[in-house]
Amino acid sequence: MTVLGLGAMGTALARAFLAAGHPTTVWNRTPGRSPELDSLGVTRATTAGEAVAATELVVVCLLIDDTVRTTLDGLDLTGRTVVNLTNSTPEQARNTARWATEAGARYLDGGIMAVPAMIGGPAAFIFYSGAEDAFEQHSADLSVLGRPAFVGADPGLAALYDIALLSAMYGMFGGAQHALALAESERVPAVGFTNEFLVPWLTAMLGSLPRMAQDLDDGPAPGAAGSNLAMQSAAYGNLIDASTAQGVDPALLVPMGELLRKTVAAGHGDADMSAAVRMLRTAD
Amino acid sequence: MTVLGLGAMGTALARAFLAAGHPTTVWNRTPGRSPELDSLGVTRATTAGEAVAATELVVVCLLIDDTVRTTLDGLDLTGRTVVNLTNSTPEQARNTARWATEAGARYLDGGIMAVPAMIGGPAAFIFYSGAEDAFEQHSADLSVLGRPAFVGADPGLAALYDIALLSAMYGMFGGAQHALALAESERVPAVGFTNEFLVPWLTAMLGSLPRMAQDLDDGPAPGAAGSNLAMQSAAYGNLIDASTAQGVDPALLVPMGELLRKTVAAGHGDADMSAAVRMLRTAD
Ligand SMILES: NC(=O)c1ccc[n+]([C@@H]2O[C@H](COP(=O)([O-])OP(=O)(O)OC[C@H]3O[C@@H](n4cnc5c(N)ncnc54)[C@H](OP(=O)(O)O)[C@@H]3O)[C@@H](O)[C@H]2O)c1
Ligand SMILES: NC(=O)c1ccc[n+]([C@@H]2O[C@H](COP(=O)([O-])OP(=O)(O)OC[C@H]3O[C@@H](n4cnc5c(N)ncnc54)[C@H](OP(=O)(O)O)[C@@H]3O)[C@@H](O)[C@H]2O)c1
Repeated sequence: MTVLGLGAMGTALARAFLAAGHPTTVWNRTPGRSPELDSLGVTRATTAGEAVAATELVVVCLLIDDTVRTTLDGLDLTGRTVVNLTNSTPEQARNTARWATEAGARYLDGGIMAVPAMIGGPAAFIFYSGAEDAFEQHSADLSVLGRPAFVGADPGLAALYDIALLSAMYGMFGGAQHALALAESERVPAVGFTNEFLVPWLTAMLGSLPRMAQDLDDGPAPGAAGSNLAMQSAAYGNLIDASTAQGVDPALLVPMGELLRKTVAAGHGDADMSAAVRMLRTAD
Repeated sequence: MTVLGLGAMGTALARAFLAAGHPTTVWNRTPGRSPELDSLGVTRATTAGEAVAATELVVVCLLIDDTVRTTLDGLDLTGRTVVNLTNSTPEQARNTARWATEAGARYLDGGIMAVPAMIGGPAAFIFYSGAEDAFEQHSADLSVLGRPAFVGADPGLAALYDIALLSAMYGMFGGAQHALALAESERVPAVGFTNEFLVPWLTAMLGSLPRMAQDLDDGPAPGAAGSNLAMQSAAYGNLIDASTAQGVDPALLVPMGELLRKTVAAGHGDADMSAAVRMLRTAD
């Protein structure tokens, strides 16, 4: 295996390959990063070209799409399978697929659904899309990083799934950060608040997502909404007012208030949260 | 027990009291709501005053703070314990405590951490603050609604905890709604996406909140961040760009991008997400 990039994530990927017994060659722009890999038997290449020449499977995990292009530019990728796990948009992934294929590679784009500490563990999964034959050939090897989920031949699809889940994560983190800032404003210790209240509450509320999804696929379930949007919108201003009064910037909360208001104004005051999802679509 | 308000939540509260064998009197502005309570033996009062006169413990669950004031205004609350579970800000709760006390009541403010279907079940909990003697006298009775958590003598504290957790919930829901809108933009069915990817992913990411809390209480843990903010900020623009390209309004995502940028600009590019929490404080 070859891994290009030894940031926090590339290092975790290389470590997982080594732990699974795969001879692994790495390259990083700044030499000598992650010295702990040396005792695990890693081979260090001094150029990206040398690393790419070493093995058929080339995993790329650099900062952003631009750095992938500049790193691989001009290299001979003939006969290589390039698995690009760098965060990208669907459009960037499709472009990278095009020029990597022109340079002789089979191309898989991927989205890692894990933080580095989770790599190789049971909760990590990775979206892949692009060259299905390359995925089939390598999925067993790639599974040492995390459960592989192939989502389609369009190389942009893995990025789409990735970005959808990252959006969900940032929403949750933003909400949790706001909650912790409010707790801190009354000197409530964060650990107790988080373990006793925040995590149990969000865990319980996660339980309402399958119902929201069902409403989206099948239309709303019959019967009155348990938490109607008119009620939610009526209370939402309290979140903003109380935050401001506590000296906590309400910025993270503002757009949801507007979405609720807009959804109620469109006649969905009796509906549940699924009605707001369709309001997010700007085109069809 | 008396319950004022038979919306979705008040109805669930009355049902839980009845199920626990408590004689329960209810009042609702619009008569005859929730007819299913009649077969459970509820007593219906025709005025709020009649309902308040019926029992010592008076639970109030109306739409917003204003409606609590107009409903209780002018009533004799002597010897009553008023437990107000209507959503309110800390400031509204403190004001309501003041005039309810002047009208002769002991006052508890509460924040219900449950949707109606969860009331009486194991995951429901309710924050209370205010008159501690009243809480101690009634906590066993109140526990049939959900696990009671008394958070302080300041009547505004329950509202603060409530609003903190609601902020977290709306962040998570907003993120999930955005994710579902992105999935829908590629005609990915919502149920499969939610059960296979969205819920497992958010469940895994919930696992990072205790560490974030620890960093807040004790300062950041030594060692490099697993997901440094400079990397996160560099990728964040992709979420906005991809959403726009897919015809999904990026409004819910925008403030987090600004928070990441601001936190990195303040010199915390090497830090983890906890560093962003302090950036939300506008005052100390
Ligand atoms: N960490 C996570 O939680 C996580 C989770 C999922 C996905 N990802 C994605 O994985 C990728 C890597 O993330 P990370 O956490 O490893 O980031 P990181 O720790 O900040 O490392 C960034 C890596 O990119 C390299 N790099 C930056 N600019 C470069 C350039 N112009 N030319 C060549 N190399 C360059 C760095 O090399 P130097 O050592 O020379 O600076 C380093 O290897 C990102 O796309 C990220 O979005 C990360
Ligand atoms: N549902 C939830 O998931 C949930 C969770 C936690 C907390 N809460 C809080 O619980 C409270 C009630 O929520 P809900 O879901 O039961 O709302 P709901 O189903 O919309 O019911 C609203 C209730 O308020 C009454 N009301 C409205 N305006 C009034 C007025 N001017 N005077 C007297 N009564 C008035 C309504 O009476 P009519 O029947 O006459 O309209 C009805 O009983 C809210 O503060 C909400 O934020 C709800």
